This record gives sequence, structure tokens and C-alpha cells, in this order.
Amino acid sequence: MHDARMAVVLLSGGMDSAVAAAEARAQGFAVNALSLRYGQRHRAELEAAVKVAESVDAARHVMLDLDLRAFGGSALTADLPLPTHRSPGEIGSGVPATYVPARNTIFLSCALAWAESLGAYDLFIGVNALDYSGYPDCRPEFIEAFERLANVATRSGTEGGHFTVHAPLLRLTKRDIVQRGLALGVDFGMTRTCYDLSSAGLACGVCDACLLRLEGFRAAGQADPAPYRSRS
Amino acid sequence: MHDARMAVVLLSGGMDSAVAAAEARAQGFAVNALSLRYGQRHRAELEAAVKVAESVDAARHVMLDLDLRAFGGSALTADLPLPTHRSPGEIGSGVPATYVPARNTIFLSCALAWAESLGAYDLFIGVNALDYSGYPDCRPEFIEAFERLANVATRSGTEGGHFTVHAPLLRLTKRDIVQRGLALGVDFGMTRTCYDLSSAGLACGVCDACLLRLEGFRAAGQADPAPYRSRS
Repeated sequence: MHDARMAVVLLSGGMDSAVAAAEARAQGFAVNALSLRYGQRHRAELEAAVKVAESVDAARHVMLDLDLRAFGGSALTADLPLPTHRSPGEIGSGVPATYVPARNTIFLSCALAWAESLGAYDLFIGVNALDYSGYPDCRPEFIEAFERLANVATRSGTEGGHFTVHAPLLRLTKRDIVQRGLALGVDFGMTRTCYDLSSAGLACGVCDACLLRLEGFRAAGQADPAPYRSRS
Repeated sequence: MHDARMAVVLLSGGMDSAVAAAEARAQGFAVNALSLRYGQRHRAELEAAVKVAESVDAARHVMLDLDLRAFGGSALTADLPLPTHRSPGEIGSGVPATYVPARNTIFLSCALAWAESLGAYDLFIGVNALDYSGYPDCRPEFIEAFERLANVATRSGTEGGHFTVHAPLLRLTKRDIVQRGLALGVDFGMTRTCYDLSSAGLACGVCDACLLRLEGFRAAGQADPAPYRSRS
């Protein structure tokens, strides 16, 4: 144990959670990284999560198994076709097929359980409401409702402590996220965002997640250092 | 698929969730039973859950693995001593050592995920605030906060549907629960409540859960049909 306040940081291996983890560290928290193996297609993300955890000197990294395929209902966990679009502007505003029912509710619940066991009161999640507003559990209303729940659901919350759900990327554009990450020293080359990663960890460059990521780097005037299948 | 409205019912194998499942069925819901293997000491409860699911003609029964021992912090999942008391009146009002951090938050989150995948809007949980008020996630405030969260966290909730968290036992005493269960035809002989069940499914008769259960049957003027190690 050391003197820093502890935070539980949800880490997917993608660029957003890497920036959230770097924010937690920059704010002086000792990072306790939590990743879930929930049956996602893009498991190479979890290998990226291990590298990201190391890069922020995580005190601990728990990899939790919870197979959401038992419930079905998402292109990210079932054998449904992934949506494809030609540009970020085409992606639209509905809830995408890659929405995993209640995923962030489950992830934050697990983070809360661990935080309470550790004696931590700060949860970090890399959700972002602006660039891809289709996910209901990436909105400010969701974060507020979860924080409220956390403080009535737990011993720590009812005995005088106060849980805070930090979503430092909530109102940033992808361009802002790239710039903020670079300012914090995030090595985006170790992160993986693609919905259809190859087993070697190469991104497809054409799924919605890749389109948004590449557009963020383009808008920031930066090259994406992550490896792509369709680019050198 | 059939005509009945679908509900997701959290089923532990204990007496409370058995009565909650019977309530769901009595209200005309098709029961989709959800049990979690979370590393609990009392795994024989899950065998009881299978029987309870069958007794309410469950449409489906999902057994989900989520090992909360990764987080530590509870006598129910770690090798901490179980509390013992001589009578229900001795149990006191603090949060007991058997509290599992954020357990019901995680369980309801999983139930919500499955409900959304199924197109169901009704969740049932057998929490009870009266007889054993030490668990923060068994209180009305918790149920209300979760219901509110469910309706901002999901596609179904934000697109005009409304999730309801039913906690039909919330304000019942253990005596009321026994009486209500018997009126609904619950066979309590198949349920298991003990924190320290033997591998053969025999209850200890002395842990807090057994004390409260036995007191409930005594107050209702009924014999508990479940098998105990220390009784014939």
C-alpha cells in the first residue's frame, strides 16, 4: 500500500480508457485496473489492456470473466454482422448493433464491488457522449444515475463515504481525446479500438470504431501509431 | 415464445427468491431464471435453484459465472469466519460480515442485460429489508435507485419502454414470507438458505441465515421441511 488515493479504472485496451487511466494517474490516484473478458470479438484488446495498465504503473490489474454471450443480443458478442459505414458522418444517431445490453452498468457494478473491497471511492470510465452518442450508457444521465446508485447500494456509501464516477472524456470529441492523451503521454500505439481486430492485433480500418478513431487522429493532425491490416 | 409477459427472476436457491419467483408466476409472468455462481461458499444453493426454476416452469434458466472472489472482502466468498449468534435478536443492526460488496447491484445489472436482450421489462429480486436490515442493497432506496438507473442505462429504457424492479418481499417479515410462500404453493423443502451448507445440501441450523429462517417458520407456526445437519 502507498499513500496515493486509490481509484478503480475500467480498462478495455481501447484509446478512450487508456486516456481515462492516464487522467486518473495525472490526478494522483493509484490505478487499480479492471478489465472484463465478456466474450467480446476483439479479445486482442485485452492484451492491449495489460500494456496500458503497465504504462500507468497500475497497483493491480484484475481480469474478470463474465460471459455476456449467455444473454445474446449484440453484434459485439454474438455472430451478428458488424455494421459498416464509409465515413464517420454516415454512422448516424440510432443505437448501433454493437450496443451490448447494459454493458457499462455491469462494468461499473463490478468496479464498484472492487472499489468497496479496496476502500476506494473513485471509479474511472472512458465513456464519451459526443462523437458516438448512440450508446445510452455513455451519456451524462447514465453516469449521474450510477453514481447515485453507488452511494445507496454499498456499505461504504451509506456509512459516510462518497463514491464518485469520473468520466473525464464524457464531453470530449475524438480529436480532443487524441490531444489530451498525447499531452498526458499516452502511447496510442499500444491501444486497440477496432471491433474486428485480427488475432495478431491488427485493426481493420473500416469498422465504425476504426472510422471514428482515424477521424480523431486526422482532426488532431496526428498519425495513428496503431497497426492496421489495410495500411502499412 | 408464448403469450405471457416475460420477467427475469434472480434465483439463489434460498427461500426468499423462491417466493419471489412464485410471485412472478402468480402475476402471470413467464419466468426467466438467472442464477450466479459468484464463488459463494454455499454452492449447494445452486442445485436448489435448479429445482425452484423447474417448480415455476421457468422458460429458461441461465447460470452465470462471475467469480467475485477476485475482489475479496466478504465472509461469504473468502475464507473469513462466518458470524454466529445464539438467537435472531442477537444479530444486531450493523452491516454483517456476510455482506458481499455491491452484490445485488451486480446481480440486477446482469438481470437487466438479459431482460433487455429478451425484450422483457420486469425484474424480480427477493430482497427483504425488514428482518435483516444490515445489507444496504436490500433497502427500498436501493431498489428505487436501480430502477431509475435501468431506465437511463438501456436502449429499451430510453426508447419508450419502462423497466420495473419488483421486490415483492421488501417489506415482509420472515413469518410473512413463509405464509405467502405456502399460499403460493412453494415447496420450501427444496430451498436452501444456510451460509454453511454441507456438500450434501444439509443446513447447519446455527448460522445467521438459518436462525432467521427457523424463526420465520416458528413464528408462522410451521415446520421447516428443509434438511438440517443438527436435526433429524
